[in-house]
Amino acid sequence: MTRFKLTIEYCGTGYSGWQRQPDRPSIQQSVEDAIKGFSQQDVHVQCAGRTDAGVHALGQVAHTDLDEGAFSKAMDEYAILKATNAYLREDTISITKVERVHEDFQARYDATNKLYRYRLINRQAVPAIEEGLVWHEGRPLNVDAMCEGAKHLLGHHDFTTFRDSECQAKSPMKTLDRLDVKEKAYDDVGGTEIVFETEGLSFLHHQVRNMVGTLVQVGLGKWQPEDVKTALEAKDRKAGGPTAPADGLYLVRIDY
Amino acid sequence: MTRFKLTIEYCGTGYSGWQRQPDRPSIQQSVEDAIKGFSQQDVHVQCAGRTDAGVHALGQVAHTDLDEGAFSKAMDEYAILKATNAYLREDTISITKVERVHEDFQARYDATNKLYRYRLINRQAVPAIEEGLVWHEGRPLNVDAMCEGAKHLLGHHDFTTFRDSECQAKSPMKTLDRLDVKEKAYDDVGGTEIVFETEGLSFLHHQVRNMVGTLVQVGLGKWQPEDVKTALEAKDRKAGGPTAPADGLYLVRIDY
Repeated sequence: MTRFKLTIEYCGTGYSGWQRQPDRPSIQQSVEDAIKGFSQQDVHVQCAGRTDAGVHALGQVAHTDLDEGAFSKAMDEYAILKATNAYLREDTISITKVERVHEDFQARYDATNKLYRYRLINRQAVPAIEEGLVWHEGRPLNVDAMCEGAKHLLGHHDFTTFRDSECQAKSPMKTLDRLDVKEKAYDDVGGTEIVFETEGLSFLHHQVRNMVGTLVQVGLGKWQPEDVKTALEAKDRKAGGPTAPADGLYLVRIDY
Repeated sequence: MTRFKLTIEYCGTGYSGWQRQPDRPSIQQSVEDAIKGFSQQDVHVQCAGRTDAGVHALGQVAHTDLDEGAFSKAMDEYAILKATNAYLREDTISITKVERVHEDFQARYDATNKLYRYRLINRQAVPAIEEGLVWHEGRPLNVDAMCEGAKHLLGHHDFTTFRDSECQAKSPMKTLDRLDVKEKAYDDVGGTEIVFETEGLSFLHHQVRNMVGTLVQVGLGKWQPEDVKTALEAKDRKAGGPTAPADGLYLVRIDY
């Protein structure tokens, strides 16, 4: 058996998330079915960071084992990429890189860093072209205040306040290495895109969306920046802001 | 009657284009129906640059007349924007700006410049997230050669070679003020996005898509940059390259 590392891009709209479900479409099922399509092999594809329904990925990473001896012809990495993508034509999923890796490689456990991005369009009009790919807020947002609030979340903390009740992590302790809030022009009529980027080794369930939802309360002026610190220290989900929708969230990159 | 200038963003996928058709969805029909929805008035919305099926707009401009005296309550520009967008919820169309203008304002005839952008993703894997929003070319493209070829199209020329046979313009003479080809990173695995931007007062039917399709022949090495000059001088559509698909084309901005 040969172990392969796959880098995967997908639009999560219309999928129940990464993880295979008995009765709903999932990224995992589509990828596993596509690999079986060209290889005739039943494979198990394990990803680094399971994404929820509607969440997108620019650089999800997964690994799987294939018996190359059973291929009908020798295939290099690019041939495997093309063959898999050919079976993904009906999906909004694309394998962007295939690499042969050591048989011990583990997409989830070997990761040293993950980068998530959250895209929020701040203007009066709803976004037409990127519907499902961004969140929208029509009221003005104070970006400086959100930056100020974000600083309180950096470092090693108990993130219970930003943890979904269904989170299965053993501990709520996580280290947030980066949480930037930046604004850029989105259209020619004054609309802006606010980009949240955060990095760390691992995150709790809904942690990024709960942090973004909380910072937007600060941006709207409903919370003061230092209220984020108070909320974090409360170690209580009810002390945090609402969960931002899945649409704006992207798993951008995983480092090894 | 009050004349209004509308700035409109839309994803053209699923529409037969701007112009109203008897039996197929169009941007014009959706916008006219939305305005009628809140105002109860039959309106005619005239745009600056009619886009084809599948072509997108970030900043289409149109004008229409409304009898404000017949409104059930006084409405400012923002109220009209919100009311129209409320009726566009099922569409991938959004009014991004509403302005009161002089009763003589003509979206099409008062324009002084138009900016079109064409987005082409150059990497082995098909784009998953922006399917329908970009063109894809899996073979390597030489951007420097495309820039070189583009220079031959600048200025005042007979653009018959890049004109669709169904074009209704009286003359094939047009002035191209700008045609830039730039490359930027698209993903973290080496894929790039090639962005074509072109400006001019007006364009022939399919002119941008035919210019892009021709320059891609240069990028692939099938044509030399100076072959673009030869093709232009032939004044014959058959001397030009293929028409690039609608997916990658955006009407970005119209100046007045």
